Amino acid sequence: MIMDSKTLGIVGGMGPLATAMLFEKIATLTRVTRDQDHIRVLIDSNPQIPDRTAHIVADGPDPREALIATAKHLEFMGADFLIMPCNTAHYFFDDITKKIAIPFLHMVNETAHHIATHFPETKKVGILATEGTCAARVYERALEKQGLTPLTPDPPMQQEVTNLIYGIKAGKTPALEGFMKAVEGLKAKGATCFVLGCTELSVAQKLHGFSGPFVDPLTVIATAAIHFAGKQSV
Amino acid sequence: MIMDSKTLGIVGGMGPLATAMLFEKIATLTRVTRDQDHIRVLIDSNPQIPDRTAHIVADGPDPREALIATAKHLEFMGADFLIMPCNTAHYFFDDITKKIAIPFLHMVNETAHHIATHFPETKKVGILATEGTCAARVYERALEKQGLTPLTPDPPMQQEVTNLIYGIKAGKTPALEGFMKAVEGLKAKGATCFVLGCTELSVAQKLHGFSGPFVDPLTVIATAAIHFAGKQSV
Repeated sequence: MIMDSKTLGIVGGMGPLATAMLFEKIATLTRVTRDQDHIRVLIDSNPQIPDRTAHIVADGPDPREALIATAKHLEFMGADFLIMPCNTAHYFFDDITKKIAIPFLHMVNETAHHIATHFPETKKVGILATEGTCAARVYERALEKQGLTPLTPDPPMQQEVTNLIYGIKAGKTPALEGFMKAVEGLKAKGATCFVLGCTELSVAQKLHGFSGPFVDPLTVIATAAIHFAGKQSV
Repeated sequence: MIMDSKTLGIVGGMGPLATAMLFEKIATLTRVTRDQDHIRVLIDSNPQIPDRTAHIVADGPDPREALIATAKHLEFMGADFLIMPCNTAHYFFDDITKKIAIPFLHMVNETAHHIATHFPETKKVGILATEGTCAARVYERALEKQGLTPLTPDPPMQQEVTNLIYGIKAGKTPALEGFMKAVEGLKAKGATCFVLGCTELSVAQKLHGFSGPFVDPLTVIATAAIHFAGKQSV
């Protein structure tokens, strides 16, 4: 079997619905005229990876071992490069790359770079993410490297964002009111662009269809993966 | 890592969008309260599997070798059982099962059984599928085993169904008029229930949101896989 493109491996399951959404984005964003034009994609949707936020902000079990095992599994299966549709898990990115020999595209850095190049007028960026992502400064560090000022919600507003994220993880379709209040709070502080910095927020956007200056890291990494694999995006 | 459920392997890529849709259905149809409640899913989305219909009705390359290799790959990766979101490919089902040692749920048989048990008043079932699926009598045989009478569109109407399917595979959102004419033609012959017997038609239903007495094999097999894995569906 001759492949003219690289095989992508997806470290998935965090959560499974976000993983499915990323896979769908890759399929719809690849320029094709028939099945055979797509890239080969290997997915390990491993929901047994312990909750990332519960480890970062509390005393939950360490997810590193399961993350590394899943990444190594994909490498062993034949993936030429990896991506990981979980923003919070990028806190452990360096621990994973140390254990694998294939390239691993960094969704958070790709997103910060995307904002800097596609929204050049932006100075302050609102981060909508889990408490774990915020506490670990996953997006803050990536945005600051691009010369951007990151803003996070105040604690009561952060709780609204957290409620939406864990509602989606629980298989529900929670209302958006609280989340939108958090967005307004960040807008009042000067944010002109917002990162949907948790894959469940990408799912929420799809479910509710809200629009605005939101950057979806799943779309950014899907496009980056298509190009890295050697194909064109639509 | 202790798993309380079986690991599912998906023989995918025929096409990738249908594979993503099946994966999404599994995620949304599993009864969960958190990420960790989902089943583990391994996917090999291998778009290099040759076109099934082109082999069945014309002189296209034989897809058997690639199908078997993909199934064996998933078994080797740790899948406890398999499913395959491509109706036409079920023509080669026995060739694949001979080469693997794990259970393989048969989407077409599951769908025929679903119709017989959930639509007990149904006698004639309209088959909306590729020419390959029809020529190989994939659904006809499964439905006849359940005591049901299968009906397929006349050649000009079949062409309308084929156009919709290959339009979706080409990344387009084709209009439904011709497809609906084929449905009406089957209704006139007495069909009271219709199988969306090609995964691209499941995608078309999602894109256009049409409703009616359509049975989606992707939903049937997603539910069967959740139960076989040892979990409850919603």
